[in-house]
Amino acid sequence: MRIGLLTGGGDCPGLNAAIRAVVKQATGEYGATVTGFRNGWRGVVDGDVVPLGRADIRNVLPVGGTLLGTARFHPHAEHGGLDGVLATLEAERIDSLICIGGDGTLHAAQQVADAGVNVIAIPKTIDNDVEGTDLSIGFHTAVNIATEAIDRVHTTAESHNRVMVVEVMGRHAGWIAVNAGIAGGAEVVLAPEEPFEIERLVKFLKHRHRAHANFSIVVVAEGAIPAEGSSMDYTQELGRFGEIIAGSIGERVSKEIAERTGFDTRLTVLGHVQRGGSPTPTDRILGSRFGVAAVDAAMRGESQVMTALRGEQVVTVPLAEVAGRLKTVPSELLRVAQVLA
Amino acid sequence: MRIGLLTGGGDCPGLNAAIRAVVKQATGEYGATVTGFRNGWRGVVDGDVVPLGRADIRNVLPVGGTLLGTARFHPHAEHGGLDGVLATLEAERIDSLICIGGDGTLHAAQQVADAGVNVIAIPKTIDNDVEGTDLSIGFHTAVNIATEAIDRVHTTAESHNRVMVVEVMGRHAGWIAVNAGIAGGAEVVLAPEEPFEIERLVKFLKHRHRAHANFSIVVVAEGAIPAEGSSMDYTQELGRFGEIIAGSIGERVSKEIAERTGFDTRLTVLGHVQRGGSPTPTDRILGSRFGVAAVDAAMRGESQVMTALRGEQVVTVPLAEVAGRLKTVPSELLRVAQVLA
Amino acid sequence: MRIGLLTGGGDCPGLNAAIRAVVKQATGEYGATVTGFRNGWRGVVDGDVVPLGRADIRNVLPVGGTLLGTARFHPHAEHGGLDGVLATLEAERIDSLICIGGDGTLHAAQQVADAGVNVIAIPKTIDNDVEGTDLSIGFHTAVNIATEAIDRVHTTAESHNRVMVVEVMGRHAGWIAVNAGIAGGAEVVLAPEEPFEIERLVKFLKHRHRAHANFSIVVVAEGAIPAEGSSMDYTQELGRFGEIIAGSIGERVSKEIAERTGFDTRLTVLGHVQRGGSPTPTDRILGSRFGVAAVDAAMRGESQVMTALRGEQVVTVPLAEVAGRLKTVPSELLRVAQVLA
Amino acid sequence: MRIGLLTGGGDCPGLNAAIRAVVKQATGEYGATVTGFRNGWRGVVDGDVVPLGRADIRNVLPVGGTLLGTARFHPHAEHGGLDGVLATLEAERIDSLICIGGDGTLHAAQQVADAGVNVIAIPKTIDNDVEGTDLSIGFHTAVNIATEAIDRVHTTAESHNRVMVVEVMGRHAGWIAVNAGIAGGAEVVLAPEEPFEIERLVKFLKHRHRAHANFSIVVVAEGAIPAEGSSMDYTQELGRFGEIIAGSIGERVSKEIAERTGFDTRLTVLGHVQRGGSPTPTDRILGSRFGVAAVDAAMRGESQVMTALRGEQVVTVPLAEVAGRLKTVPSELLRVAQVLA
Repeated sequence: MRIGLLTGGGDCPGLNAAIRAVVKQATGEYGATVTGFRNGWRGVVDGDVVPLGRADIRNVLPVGGTLLGTARFHPHAEHGGLDGVLATLEAERIDSLICIGGDGTLHAAQQVADAGVNVIAIPKTIDNDVEGTDLSIGFHTAVNIATEAIDRVHTTAESHNRVMVVEVMGRHAGWIAVNAGIAGGAEVVLAPEEPFEIERLVKFLKHRHRAHANFSIVVVAEGAIPAEGSSMDYTQELGRFGEIIAGSIGERVSKEIAERTGFDTRLTVLGHVQRGGSPTPTDRILGSRFGVAAVDAAMRGESQVMTALRGEQVVTVPLAEVAGRLKTVPSELLRVAQVLA
Repeated sequence: MRIGLLTGGGDCPGLNAAIRAVVKQATGEYGATVTGFRNGWRGVVDGDVVPLGRADIRNVLPVGGTLLGTARFHPHAEHGGLDGVLATLEAERIDSLICIGGDGTLHAAQQVADAGVNVIAIPKTIDNDVEGTDLSIGFHTAVNIATEAIDRVHTTAESHNRVMVVEVMGRHAGWIAVNAGIAGGAEVVLAPEEPFEIERLVKFLKHRHRAHANFSIVVVAEGAIPAEGSSMDYTQELGRFGEIIAGSIGERVSKEIAERTGFDTRLTVLGHVQRGGSPTPTDRILGSRFGVAAVDAAMRGESQVMTALRGEQVVTVPLAEVAGRLKTVPSELLRVAQVLA
Repeated sequence: MRIGLLTGGGDCPGLNAAIRAVVKQATGEYGATVTGFRNGWRGVVDGDVVPLGRADIRNVLPVGGTLLGTARFHPHAEHGGLDGVLATLEAERIDSLICIGGDGTLHAAQQVADAGVNVIAIPKTIDNDVEGTDLSIGFHTAVNIATEAIDRVHTTAESHNRVMVVEVMGRHAGWIAVNAGIAGGAEVVLAPEEPFEIERLVKFLKHRHRAHANFSIVVVAEGAIPAEGSSMDYTQELGRFGEIIAGSIGERVSKEIAERTGFDTRLTVLGHVQRGGSPTPTDRILGSRFGVAAVDAAMRGESQVMTALRGEQVVTVPLAEVAGRLKTVPSELLRVAQVLA
Repeated sequence: MRIGLLTGGGDCPGLNAAIRAVVKQATGEYGATVTGFRNGWRGVVDGDVVPLGRADIRNVLPVGGTLLGTARFHPHAEHGGLDGVLATLEAERIDSLICIGGDGTLHAAQQVADAGVNVIAIPKTIDNDVEGTDLSIGFHTAVNIATEAIDRVHTTAESHNRVMVVEVMGRHAGWIAVNAGIAGGAEVVLAPEEPFEIERLVKFLKHRHRAHANFSIVVVAEGAIPAEGSSMDYTQELGRFGEIIAGSIGERVSKEIAERTGFDTRLTVLGHVQRGGSPTPTDRILGSRFGVAAVDAAMRGESQVMTALRGEQVVTVPLAEVAGRLKTVPSELLRVAQVLA
């Protein structure tokens, strides 16, 4: 059995744990080989391959990023991409291709699968918005980093009587914002799931500062949007990969709060630190379990599936049922963020 | 509505998050009051009460331990304990008693419920062995601390060509050992779920040090036991609360490895640091969700239930179905720990 | 003996450690009292006082920020400020005023001292640019946070073949940039001490990416400036408190690199997280030692001095010798940052 | 110029930073070569050498331990050790030998220097007891780890009304105990510098628990000893390398407190975790500066010196002035630990 392996999309902590587990499990009792492709789908199209053995994965468990490299590259977006993929996989005689990635990678994986390739997907996205799994690789570390940042600005907010606005990642779903907001004790969390009214937000802050306290933390997901009819005019502008290219919503919200309340208001945009560094134990374990499960599935002859965490179990789910579908934050969790404000 | 609240058993990170959530949710829109009992069931028996308002829970979210205090005290283990409990609850006119605790506390809660008290339980135990919920409060932080310790001894093991044995908590189930073992990249994990053969362990280490590497990490749950018929003679001696009172198994395993292999072998017993300090975001969120859910359940008129995490949902499960039952590590996870060695 | 206490300027971790030490040392064997002023010099002018006893400082050691509050407020910058200060100090019968702050606070302290008040200063600034002391409170924690951020973007830089630009604090001196740059293994560090030539920087990056590696980390102090005659046109615009009000130099450098090299280049501006959260042990110890030393100095009858760390010793130095003077990074340290690139 | 390099004694965080800096600085503009010896002096005696180039030090900056390996091995303690050292150094044509180590390594370095070898020493010891330098590599990380552990047991002490005894490293000097004790807010610190009276300690704890609080943290350096004439009988038993081989003083103190006060008392022995894992930024910077300074000294023709931190400067000091001399905690710092109790 010859297994192919790639990591696609944005990098995140826990990818190396998954790569390590794939290599250990495949080359162990199964006696399979693992061929890595460099820089995501680009490496498959270009035939940029690297054989992966046990020596290549030493000491990578606690290291962030991906030893295979990654790229935001869609094989179909380029002319002849799919042909290149099929040619390389045939040349390398790959029996099963394990693709670790987020929505873009899963979408490409589905198309490659439709062309007859045996594909096993492993979900990773710090946004945690992949349908069908409780957790995707990278999300847990991102929540930890965002919570630590909120803890840090908390003391400044309190010492200076300020409103601190913290913008976190989350284009289409507010998983990081809601979880880090609850964990950090934020007063307000703005998530894409519930368009916000700037008037109501401002009224809440004014009331709070008059009645209880003279500081507040406002956590804003980068994909948060004002409700229609809100007096705050703002339109998200998206690029061709769904990325936000308009000005930051955090900047806008921060400015509106400052102007409408007169409170000393400051913005922190967390940015890239959310997706880097050593993975939390949870992401190391998740990556390890997904890697083992993906190889097991391949050896059992499964294909066109994605590994998924369901409660305490790691299972596989049909790729067709999850690719391209968005998982948003459930209302119970959104409500907890609100009642604890 | 008058809500009573206690934390019982060993302390752990995340208890204050749950207390805070109970107080915020109860005293918010519901307009209920919260009466705290100091030092677990002892405070209920003794009538040691403290009213809890929003001022009492300021800034406690990131703080470990429990602001209510706790004690390993079983109301039934003492003469007249249950009468004291009922008398105090009546005197304080408690409509619903929220009990945050592990197996001992849940057992007592079940008995108090049988006597007609409305009880809502919230599971906490760093051992994670409460049935019916994916996670209990405190476990996640313990895994983080144990993983960090394994990461630390890893560099010493490698620099000095040593076998490092790390004993972690887990009397009846190996959740911490297995999870921290996977996350820390341990070569061997000994858990209560699978009695171990010392000969096989020794053989594995000898083979590894001859063939691949000259160091190893062995993680031992405090409740790990040798298989029957193993050449290593060892019997766990338990106290009346189920605690281990015989010599540490880690010490024993460490000695056996040193004697049988001749390798330089050192022991680290993590002990109390596993249950203290600031909770991880996951434990803060879990405590917060459980606290909100417990109050919601009480206000809905539910009783004799326990809050539980099931996948992405927080639900309630009948207390009778879970109290006294032990949740052990599933074989899939035990296997991941083995194949990644 | 009646001691007054204020914290001025921007907040930072370790202030509470110093406050706690002042209170413990003063109210212990010395039997003195401590009167706190809220929000820096503003509280002195306004007579906003709070008596500080041992109950007020419980559990504050590991907490960031300042329990006294702080403000960027110069008594002389406002009409009649100094008169207000003197009136309040007389009304409160303050024998000795302990001022914890950075250059602005020390400058004000010097003027208040000139008006006849007994002043003891304790240096705090995350920029570490106060003359006369090896360390000021807050700097060490800031370096830790910045290093952690560099560690995090490192894995992304490597996985995506990017240039990551990280802007850190440091208006007039590059202490954070140089230290975090060395600790994080940055390829380039731009500090105010050595105006940089953008052409040389670009040439270095091009050479490195061609010869050795395909990623780089560039750490930029917010006060870094291009050398005269450099082809990059940029002028710092400063506000009346010396703060930078022109566009971020990090943003500018990031844009220049992207345009001149064609490399995928991303910017992270750390901002407020650098000055918040729990202090490192070093900042807790420094704050504690300075607090004890300040009270000791006051009780010995010293005045118009600042506590200072000199090697392993905490000493006092004349305030007049240090106030208003800037401590920059020594060339040995700048060179280490360069040779390790 | 041919430089030799070894790391001796116990491993600690920051060694790799020093190794990296030696290699970068030597092989950079100086054009020198670096020959590493494996496992400390043993590698020199046995001729176990490894050439070190830039590829060997990639990504080691944040990694604990030492890539060269280390051993507690004294060349003179073995028959013919010195001859072996001289033979190997001649065979490898080493012009200057950089030895990174603690008192044992420095002592050996002095003897090797006396035999005519050009030696540059770099001090490392988590105990921080090397004379002549403010800091040695590894100490700062150890203080951080010990402080974090004290923070953790703090919440348990408070929640359970316990005395928590924490034993930390420090055979001949109490640097870790005193610093971590101050940073963690310990009530009592026992250091080798000041033999303690158990009666006084017990009296203090009884008074504190009656008057103020019902919990305490007692930090004990492993080398702490009771005062002569104290009612607690205890004698340290030392091995031939000065290591403590008698029973742990922490265990003994813990037992005495429990028996004499009746308080619920628990012991945590930190052990090996204190010397492992990723170095703090301070240790990375210190290792980097020492590595660069050692090569600079060698290239300047200096020998028989040790790199040292003095305030903000890295300097070199004559090895003969520091080898074999013990640096203990100054009384000012011991006093701060006491007054903040």
